[in-house]
Amino acid sequence: MRELIQRMLTGDKRSCAKLITAVENNTEEAEKILGELHSYTGRAHVIGITGPPGAGKSTLTDKIAKALVDRGKKVGIIAIDPTSPYSGGSILGDRIRMQDLALNPSVFIRSMGTRGYLGGLSKYTKNALKILDAAGYDYIIIETVGVGQSEVDIVKTADTILMVMVPGLGDDIQSIKAGIMEIGDIFAINKSDLFGADRTATEVNMMLDLNGVMERRPPVLKVIASKNEGIDALVDEIDSHMDYLKSGGMLEERRRSNLKLEVVELIEAELRKIVFSYAAIDNRLETEVNKVLGKEKNLYEVRDEFLETIRN
Amino acid sequence: MRELIQRMLTGDKRSCAKLITAVENNTEEAEKILGELHSYTGRAHVIGITGPPGAGKSTLTDKIAKALVDRGKKVGIIAIDPTSPYSGGSILGDRIRMQDLALNPSVFIRSMGTRGYLGGLSKYTKNALKILDAAGYDYIIIETVGVGQSEVDIVKTADTILMVMVPGLGDDIQSIKAGIMEIGDIFAINKSDLFGADRTATEVNMMLDLNGVMERRPPVLKVIASKNEGIDALVDEIDSHMDYLKSGGMLEERRRSNLKLEVVELIEAELRKIVFSYAAIDNRLETEVNKVLGKEKNLYEVRDEFLETIRN
Repeated sequence: MRELIQRMLTGDKRSCAKLITAVENNTEEAEKILGELHSYTGRAHVIGITGPPGAGKSTLTDKIAKALVDRGKKVGIIAIDPTSPYSGGSILGDRIRMQDLALNPSVFIRSMGTRGYLGGLSKYTKNALKILDAAGYDYIIIETVGVGQSEVDIVKTADTILMVMVPGLGDDIQSIKAGIMEIGDIFAINKSDLFGADRTATEVNMMLDLNGVMERRPPVLKVIASKNEGIDALVDEIDSHMDYLKSGGMLEERRRSNLKLEVVELIEAELRKIVFSYAAIDNRLETEVNKVLGKEKNLYEVRDEFLETIRN
Repeated sequence: MRELIQRMLTGDKRSCAKLITAVENNTEEAEKILGELHSYTGRAHVIGITGPPGAGKSTLTDKIAKALVDRGKKVGIIAIDPTSPYSGGSILGDRIRMQDLALNPSVFIRSMGTRGYLGGLSKYTKNALKILDAAGYDYIIIETVGVGQSEVDIVKTADTILMVMVPGLGDDIQSIKAGIMEIGDIFAINKSDLFGADRTATEVNMMLDLNGVMERRPPVLKVIASKNEGIDALVDEIDSHMDYLKSGGMLEERRRSNLKLEVVELIEAELRKIVFSYAAIDNRLETEVNKVLGKEKNLYEVRDEFLETIRN
């Protein structure tokens, strides 16, 4: 394992992939690996890319990565894959387009499915991110599927959050925007050659203006990822956001608060293990739940009895 | 409070609203209320409605509710509102259309924002649902905004899950479908007068067929909610799904497993309170996180020290 880490630190992609797998499988080694790598982390610029279905996030990720590579940078990509949490089936879809990019020695791509990570995908994403960070990738892009709460949680750990919008999302554009407006550091209107692009840009700008006083007003850029148009300006904005974060001590503050959350989550995960081990004893959970169904007890009485047992 | 519960049980809408508010505010009374109501619950047919942005879920909810009322039923609606978890701002949007419905004595509508419920919206939804259940609503419809993990978690607690699809969602339709295919009990292709409706229906049917052997193959129905077309057939399917659930003992099984999850969540919530109370002591979390940032310790060392403290 130590040898694998050494090879990874010198830039070997295969060792990097193996370490991510070890972390994904949540072996006992996972914590050892991450513990050892801790001192190498904190250097990468993490970019979170999110937005509604159909916005063309994969294509945009592809083009941003290429632009960064052209600037001589190493880029890691973590693509949150639309895997069913129920079937375990995986659909690669857009990823196939990325194969070209994956062959580039300066690029590392990892797809992470949602399978088996129920309620914990953000943990595995963070762990993979740490390995890529330690491996010396200058930029790490996390690309999510949708705009649900779990996606927001994942993308919030990024330094720079890029919201991808697209013309013609229908009535629900209001709701999408309401949920994500304030986490976006940069807004890209993709497919801006489509009808309605100007209107979408105007709407986004208006919502940002309505948002009240902001220390930094997020820029809104029009791009056409499929034609590689507007990508360079977008990458410039990504870099300029990092300069902004560093200048005011905000980068450190952002990372500190993410770290706090992560520590709390780690503690909670251990406590959860304790709960489940008690619940499993003599099928106690099963027995008690039957009593609740039979209206003999209510939920809170059962909970309190469990807590009593755990405390003693 | 007891008086309020009595009035609610006789069908008073205002008392019902007050009790939901009490539960939302998570006062100490919340558990007392829910504990007392426990024996009145378990009678409503809970319908979860979800699907991608732009699918017209609100309009469809509206029409399903009206159809049920026409059949002499009482309907409760819990609409998960697209409130920003960050600004606390709330956008009513489609809800305004529902005002007409809200005035109907057989209908109760409650919008629940995501504000303040971070990580816990499903809990508040479940609690509101219990109150409506106890209040004697025959059907309770939970309508969510998107198809993220948190929406899936909420909707999974329903007896019948209605997935609303729509023609022309673009490339990402694959990913939407992959994530939700197996939780849908009934599929509705809304706006089926739009170009591409047949293709969407075919795609959904194909994915369901590829899904392997199913005890019950979910029906796929074409509807046009805005024109009230296909709604009656859809409501028939909703009822027939409940007959199916009851016939094989599956309803009880589904509710038992949801209840188990809920008990575990309640226990976890209490343990989380303990973690936070320790973390707050002397700003210990702050101090330890600074050590992690300074590479003096790693995350796991900090976690283990906290757990040690909690155990003693």
